[in-house]
Amino acid sequence: MSENNTRSQLLLEDEALRDGLQIEPQIFTIDQKIELFNLLKNAGIGRIQVGAFVHPKIVPQMADTDELINNLGDQGGTVISALILNDKGLERALACRVQHVSMSVSVSDSHSRKNARLSAADALAGMVDLIKNAGSEGLEVRAGLQSAFGCVYEGAISESAVLTAAEKMVAAGVDEINLADSTGMANPQTIRSLVSLVGQQFPGVSISLHLHDTRGLGLANMFSGYEAGVRVFDVCAGGLGGCPFIKGAAGNVPTEDAVHMFESMGIATGIDLKSLLSAVDYLENGLGRSLPGRMKRVLDFQQNCDN
Amino acid sequence: MSENNTRSQLLLEDEALRDGLQIEPQIFTIDQKIELFNLLKNAGIGRIQVGAFVHPKIVPQMADTDELINNLGDQGGTVISALILNDKGLERALACRVQHVSMSVSVSDSHSRKNARLSAADALAGMVDLIKNAGSEGLEVRAGLQSAFGCVYEGAISESAVLTAAEKMVAAGVDEINLADSTGMANPQTIRSLVSLVGQQFPGVSISLHLHDTRGLGLANMFSGYEAGVRVFDVCAGGLGGCPFIKGAAGNVPTEDAVHMFESMGIATGIDLKSLLSAVDYLENGLGRSLPGRMKRVLDFQQNCDN
Repeated sequence: MSENNTRSQLLLEDEALRDGLQIEPQIFTIDQKIELFNLLKNAGIGRIQVGAFVHPKIVPQMADTDELINNLGDQGGTVISALILNDKGLERALACRVQHVSMSVSVSDSHSRKNARLSAADALAGMVDLIKNAGSEGLEVRAGLQSAFGCVYEGAISESAVLTAAEKMVAAGVDEINLADSTGMANPQTIRSLVSLVGQQFPGVSISLHLHDTRGLGLANMFSGYEAGVRVFDVCAGGLGGCPFIKGAAGNVPTEDAVHMFESMGIATGIDLKSLLSAVDYLENGLGRSLPGRMKRVLDFQQNCDN
Repeated sequence: MSENNTRSQLLLEDEALRDGLQIEPQIFTIDQKIELFNLLKNAGIGRIQVGAFVHPKIVPQMADTDELINNLGDQGGTVISALILNDKGLERALACRVQHVSMSVSVSDSHSRKNARLSAADALAGMVDLIKNAGSEGLEVRAGLQSAFGCVYEGAISESAVLTAAEKMVAAGVDEINLADSTGMANPQTIRSLVSLVGQQFPGVSISLHLHDTRGLGLANMFSGYEAGVRVFDVCAGGLGGCPFIKGAAGNVPTEDAVHMFESMGIATGIDLKSLLSAVDYLENGLGRSLPGRMKRVLDFQQNCDN
């Protein structure tokens, strides 16, 4: 467990560099990525997912992940994480000496076949092997289940399907189970129900939530997850990222809005909001557009009033 | 209590015609207002705040409230409500035979002096008289406290200030206490805390919440309020309305996103989402811009996929 997690209890993993930038037509340079990483780190983000070891032709935005991580080197208390999907990715992760890897499969068979060209069962079997392989190399491993709260193709996803998959992941030695609401179909009650079930069944394993704000429920679901015991949440500065299925809909929960929610409730995040907004500024300037996060506009306005 | 409220337990009061349109530079015609009312009613909205009996020179957007209500006549199970601020407004309300009136003052002294040019104490004393006068005329009265969860000028607002004000409103015979988060400063914990306190102290009085989405917490606060026992929420189709203090920030909780949240949790709203989106369409066409509500885009996209 990272120092930051122990210190602040709550851990926000920023994924703007991966889940955010991977769908942007504009490819950030390695210098831009390093600058963004530094802004996020300096704001106090405890874990940063910086890229993905995937095929550079399929996701050119992530092609320089190896070089980026080599450049970043050891960042002390800030955990650098990267996404891997197979043994080739694991090899690259090991070559860069990443200490934390993320992986995920869809619990929906239709989604898995469309997205990964594998049945959900085959994808899960592959990930179970990958968890074992990464664990045996001494890496900290978090593995996720996409569409855990519903699927645009299949509708509702049964909790038992999630529990069955989670059981295999736990048996393989996963450190953290990431439950992903890939298309924003969760609601505060399904979050509470599934998180409680997984937590009861696997008390020794950390649970994290990856929430999309497609239907405006990102923060409501995050609050519900917190109440149900989750202490690790994925976020993206500015609310970058998105759901490729729902054009124009907002992406991940904005880091700054999550920080505001928790801090306003007296729950320490270890993150300085004002400092974090420099990262949002940097992203908005780099992309040439406003992002959906609210707190930048709120604080910009307050600052104008103070002047 | 309205039929709708009894039937569905949950009551969403749409305020697009009042809190929404009152800050729009473009003034809707009475025909446009009637059309919007009908779309909201046909979707199943149980209570609609259609206007305000305020000075037509100060709020020209609401100048035709008398004429609008006379035109609407008796709408059966759909409760027509209007805002009044003084005895002159009450006179106009009575002349139109409105059966339900809303009124409100700020619990923050600074906000009250800026907005109503009265100390909070004087404003409250005036509202207490107005509650009595409206009640003695047989009207159903809901009275609200603005800035109940924080004030942009004063910061935190003490719960005891809210309880003291609520006590006077209850003694005056108010039917419903509306707690208003005028500038989106509430969080799920302050919602739970204040709602629980008011509910415990005044068990016979209905509590409603008026939430602004300035910091993205509108639905999270609504969920928290529901969990704490609130069954009446103010909403605006499309998320119309806004906080005049925070330029560019979203306004009220979008009716359609609230309907989606509750219905997805199995909590009946009595509102048909698809039908409601006609009202959002009508508003967006009339105003010539997109509104912040999410569900219209989500359903538009799904429909395009089905074709």
